[in-house]
Amino acid sequence: MQGYEEFQKRFEFSPELRNALFENAQYQTFEAGEEIIAQGDTLDSIGFVLEGVLTGNRGNYDGVERMIGLVGAGDIYAETGLFHTTKAFCTFQAVTDCTVLVVPNQVIETIDNKLEMMEFLFWSQSKKLQYTSMIHFASTERDKVIKVAAILEAIAHYSHLEDIPLTIEQLASFLGMSRNTVSKSLRELEKRGAVEIGKAGIRIKERYLLTIDGSGKKLF
Amino acid sequence: MQGYEEFQKRFEFSPELRNALFENAQYQTFEAGEEIIAQGDTLDSIGFVLEGVLTGNRGNYDGVERMIGLVGAGDIYAETGLFHTTKAFCTFQAVTDCTVLVVPNQVIETIDNKLEMMEFLFWSQSKKLQYTSMIHFASTERDKVIKVAAILEAIAHYSHLEDIPLTIEQLASFLGMSRNTVSKSLRELEKRGAVEIGKAGIRIKERYLLTIDGSGKKLF
Repeated sequence: MQGYEEFQKRFEFSPELRNALFENAQYQTFEAGEEIIAQGDTLDSIGFVLEGVLTGNRGNYDGVERMIGLVGAGDIYAETGLFHTTKAFCTFQAVTDCTVLVVPNQVIETIDNKLEMMEFLFWSQSKKLQYTSMIHFASTERDKVIKVAAILEAIAHYSHLEDIPLTIEQLASFLGMSRNTVSKSLRELEKRGAVEIGKAGIRIKERYLLTIDGSGKKLF
Repeated sequence: MQGYEEFQKRFEFSPELRNALFENAQYQTFEAGEEIIAQGDTLDSIGFVLEGVLTGNRGNYDGVERMIGLVGAGDIYAETGLFHTTKAFCTFQAVTDCTVLVVPNQVIETIDNKLEMMEFLFWSQSKKLQYTSMIHFASTERDKVIKVAAILEAIAHYSHLEDIPLTIEQLASFLGMSRNTVSKSLRELEKRGAVEIGKAGIRIKERYLLTIDGSGKKLF
């Protein structure tokens, strides 16, 4: 029954759906840095994140990998395989130690509580869409400090993270900004008391200050 | 029965679901430039686009509106109201003349073929998520011509458009680029034979050429 309690805690399913998923799930652990799914792999199951954070990174024509998303505990990954995309369009990698439950697509397709499952999938995709739209909207912002603050606020809000396990390098690649500009903006936000920059990532100290000029007014 | 044939053509629903939605739908038309839903409005129904193109624009703290998405025929809008967001986070505006069917959320929630509807909603959100991820990924690209080409290819692919009814101004705001850079990149793509720049927007002449250096290799 490894992972059952975390599954119950992280995902609000009816007992019927929860048990049906859990009975057919595989419990897996990944160490920080480990690859979970490679870009181009066939997606034949959904991952439910119980603990930890993973990123989606897409390799580019120039050989550089860029982060396109962040998935935290309570979120799912690889769900697009259920419908229209059978190949992963990014590599999923653990950024911290992760535990996940992996459920084959076949199980989802034939499950008794399919309506509840589909409502969850719609809700989850919709949340990710809002997240991604927000990140894209913020990325066109010209004021660099407002931009970095808004993205951190979005990550904190949607991924439920207080400790964002990203290096300045990773954040810069995510935002299409230079390492130097991200670094300067972060130091500005640190001075404001909004964040603390550590070796393992960025700690959100006060979300309220991660807003336009720290006044609580949000960019998105 | 106004709009029934277009609804049947644009949306692949079972006859039962199609009829249930259609019976409870309101047929509406909007002229180019007209506002359909204002940012902050309560979302109490879903729109099914039968003809035309509309954009989602979000007003910013600096008073400037930025485009955050494009919705074409066969797509839906305002569907987030069904679940977690009851207020519109952007203004929906017709960019060309549009005809739409509007179905109250209450109808969707109590419909007989709810599973089919939820599967459609999941699929639709998932497609929009891939679209938005692609746009964001491309927006961090440093080569301006590759960037503009990739975005146009994405719009053509996901919104099924050959004529993209956007001005250079609108495209620039969408991409967080200057009008001048977008204009130069478009002229480069026009020379390549990929697009034709007209007064009413950008016509895609050859999608194959809207790729990295025109060799068919895609950015995303």
